[in-house]
Amino acid sequence: MNGAQALTRTLVDHGVDTCFMNPGTSEMHFVAALDSVTDLRGVLALFEGVATGAADGYARMTGRPAATLLHLGPGLGNGLANLHNARKAHTPVVNIVGDHATYHKRYDAQLESDIETVARNVSSFIRWSAGPGTVGTDAADAVLAAIGPPGQVASLVLPADASWSDGGHPVAPAPGWSPRSATGSPPDPAAVADAATTLRSGEPTALLVGGRAVRGDALDDAARVAAATGVRLLSETFPARLERGAGRPPVERLSYLAEFTALQLDGLRHLVVVDAASPVSFFAYPDKPSDLVPDGCTVHHLAGPADDVAAALAALVEELGCRGTEPVRQSAARPGRPSGALTAQTVCEALGALLPEGAIVSDEGITAGVYAPGATAGAPPHDWLALTGGAIGQGLPVAVGAAVACPDRKVVALQADGSALYTLQSWWTMAREGLDVTTVVLNNRSYAVLNMELERVGAEPPGPRAKAMLDLTGPGLDFGSLARGFGVESATASTAEEFTVALERALATSGPSVVEAVIPSVL
Amino acid sequence: MNGAQALTRTLVDHGVDTCFMNPGTSEMHFVAALDSVTDLRGVLALFEGVATGAADGYARMTGRPAATLLHLGPGLGNGLANLHNARKAHTPVVNIVGDHATYHKRYDAQLESDIETVARNVSSFIRWSAGPGTVGTDAADAVLAAIGPPGQVASLVLPADASWSDGGHPVAPAPGWSPRSATGSPPDPAAVADAATTLRSGEPTALLVGGRAVRGDALDDAARVAAATGVRLLSETFPARLERGAGRPPVERLSYLAEFTALQLDGLRHLVVVDAASPVSFFAYPDKPSDLVPDGCTVHHLAGPADDVAAALAALVEELGCRGTEPVRQSAARPGRPSGALTAQTVCEALGALLPEGAIVSDEGITAGVYAPGATAGAPPHDWLALTGGAIGQGLPVAVGAAVACPDRKVVALQADGSALYTLQSWWTMAREGLDVTTVVLNNRSYAVLNMELERVGAEPPGPRAKAMLDLTGPGLDFGSLARGFGVESATASTAEEFTVALERALATSGPSVVEAVIPSVL
Repeated sequence: MNGAQALTRTLVDHGVDTCFMNPGTSEMHFVAALDSVTDLRGVLALFEGVATGAADGYARMTGRPAATLLHLGPGLGNGLANLHNARKAHTPVVNIVGDHATYHKRYDAQLESDIETVARNVSSFIRWSAGPGTVGTDAADAVLAAIGPPGQVASLVLPADASWSDGGHPVAPAPGWSPRSATGSPPDPAAVADAATTLRSGEPTALLVGGRAVRGDALDDAARVAAATGVRLLSETFPARLERGAGRPPVERLSYLAEFTALQLDGLRHLVVVDAASPVSFFAYPDKPSDLVPDGCTVHHLAGPADDVAAALAALVEELGCRGTEPVRQSAARPGRPSGALTAQTVCEALGALLPEGAIVSDEGITAGVYAPGATAGAPPHDWLALTGGAIGQGLPVAVGAAVACPDRKVVALQADGSALYTLQSWWTMAREGLDVTTVVLNNRSYAVLNMELERVGAEPPGPRAKAMLDLTGPGLDFGSLARGFGVESATASTAEEFTVALERALATSGPSVVEAVIPSVL
Repeated sequence: MNGAQALTRTLVDHGVDTCFMNPGTSEMHFVAALDSVTDLRGVLALFEGVATGAADGYARMTGRPAATLLHLGPGLGNGLANLHNARKAHTPVVNIVGDHATYHKRYDAQLESDIETVARNVSSFIRWSAGPGTVGTDAADAVLAAIGPPGQVASLVLPADASWSDGGHPVAPAPGWSPRSATGSPPDPAAVADAATTLRSGEPTALLVGGRAVRGDALDDAARVAAATGVRLLSETFPARLERGAGRPPVERLSYLAEFTALQLDGLRHLVVVDAASPVSFFAYPDKPSDLVPDGCTVHHLAGPADDVAAALAALVEELGCRGTEPVRQSAARPGRPSGALTAQTVCEALGALLPEGAIVSDEGITAGVYAPGATAGAPPHDWLALTGGAIGQGLPVAVGAAVACPDRKVVALQADGSALYTLQSWWTMAREGLDVTTVVLNNRSYAVLNMELERVGAEPPGPRAKAMLDLTGPGLDFGSLARGFGVESATASTAEEFTVALERALATSGPSVVEAVIPSVL
């Protein structure tokens, strides 16, 4: 058995049975191993950013890591932006990067690079596999590191000769081991007591949830606490996976815009934080604060990414004696089918009118998606995957991964035009794998968010040469043609009625489709 | 004057008047500065890999660095692969990466990352600008570092507050300074004497040239030496810019395939190397050597990337007393217009039949481009830009940069299908800027090179699951639709006659166009 076979066997035995890949020559033995370890599913991407983002989306939905397979330092570079997003999402990823054979590195061939250096910024765990005899152990360690908690990107650098040489030994996991088993540190009684005292204090207080606290029992318990104590329930701005919709506890997400976040937090004396960061501005702006916690407000941390978040919230419920309190739940409500002009708002209304039960929304709508949370709040239960790390080009790859993870659920990629273009190759993988993803492209023909930011950062009144750098006309992008080029059906709409009909048809059809909405900028 | 204005003024005054950019919020003051420093040309890319590859192509043609403008660590990650290629090409690039404001970094906001770590692998020079007062000096130092010699990627990390704060001072270059002025160390008399002695030894010897020795007077002198001493003139496999065609000295490029390189070098006792690396295998293969220099062959280094290569060759000519020797020159010859089936060979014959004088060929043809050098050897004089670092996705971006650099010359991007898909967004920049680039897409519907490599690395007889990872059908890519989606005219050909007519039309028309050749794999 060679190293590649030992590696893939170890991965599968540890519950890592899906590999999103864009391999090259140095990874050919890993690819060949797909025919001997046939329970590892290889999903091909045309670009590494698709593979890494798909691994992120897959693990957000399954709770289990996927593997990636990337080609040397440049391939890792291409995948880095979505590994950044995965890192910020605390997503477990087993990130496998092929390298030259150990003895070849000293020749400084064309593709030689320092892979560990490139990997460091996104990886808490980096291991360079020395040979076939250790690659099984290295893979097992990488999976263990990846699942955390917190979930993280574990990078395994795999020299070609560690892959191709005989002497590989797969490593079996401990009995009863599950890749979802790592739940984190048990609740800290002092933190629970402090949170309870704070929530009962009667002072203006909010509960800020994120991470694993915005879904399942943890979210229910958070909402129960909020209902019992009368505090507001807020969530982080960009949750990795938020469960929402009719019947689920609604949360008020903090705004991307620091000015609005300041209004949301105004007057608070206490913020009890659960698996979320203390609120800070996304970017810095001249003469505006970075730390958005109001003066005089104390931040209390109940549990963080390394803790058993659900247990901490359950302990808080017990401490408060509110197990019997029913959380506020979102009532079912949809907007009517929109008519008239197609705008960011009517696009989102159509989505709210039609979003199917169990849908997974991969949200990279940026400015044009601003109405989507409101329009879908009372839609049937669904999951919402946000842009955790702010590195654009996440939306379509995460949709790929979510669709691979959940073949029985409809995935909707709510996708701005500018950010779509970073990882548009995702459409081909959707077509190849027959993934049930409807992409809504919000085509406002500009980097609209940057037009806003150009003003917000207080730059001189912008001139024509600056504005030209934010403009996506001349030529305008034809997303219908681009979709067809990648093998995906598409429709382009320019009225609300057209869009609603096209979206309805796309959602009713299994498999990938694109609906392009040509809209004015909201700004 | 703010820091961004001081930076841009300093760049232009140092001859860096073009910036390939994909900015975000933290770079908005740099963008705004385009309206006050109006002699800096901003060229927008939809993806950072396009910007970095374009900077590479621009400097290969002008000898002067361009700047890039990238958005934080993830933007740098997206640009990393083509910075790797630039590093291997010894291309000067002033790589500007925006960062959060200095005081904002400690808040670990969503886009926070360690930019210096990401930059390190590709950058010989990394400077984090501390504030507006130093940014002019930092920019001047970055340009100086970039031009070398050898040319290199100099990364300047630009915090948003260094950009937006007042107190910037542009820095003027020294009188008479030119961004092309750095020629390198003068010839080493001992190395010149050793090379001369070796070349006159009568033992089997070859002269291996690369870098700046494959163009202009340096190439003429290398060919003069070869003619006078009777040795073979070889070149590195992937030169950054090779001047070739009718009337120029022909060089025999070393093969990508180590097996063929071994044949090219077989029997040599001496290899005199000029601005090239000693030959090594591109990848390692089981039981095959990495070092391709034959046993018993001594490598002599006349001059390297940090040296004045042209002066070293001129000194060698003087030492050998062969100034009067006329180099062998390529005679003019073109293949006839091909007919019949469209194959990799007939595509290349059509290119040879039609390539215009002064063309610049950006070659990422990979397997399907294998016939191109032969078919164009006797075409009118042209430049050939190769895949220096092996990180695919270089071809189209380098074509963008070459076309911006040389608006009066026709650029031909000879582009394989698989590698095209990494940076296809280049087509939009070509359309937007009206660049005179004809892209020939060699669509063999597979990662053909990997099918070959899968066999070469000695993997088990590949099974269907492995082969599926190298296959680009299901769905096939429709490059015509993709081109139209980005605003570029396209034609698709499936016979040699169709292709020749389409190519002729594309070459006769100014501005960007795509000709897709649907061909069988050569393998």
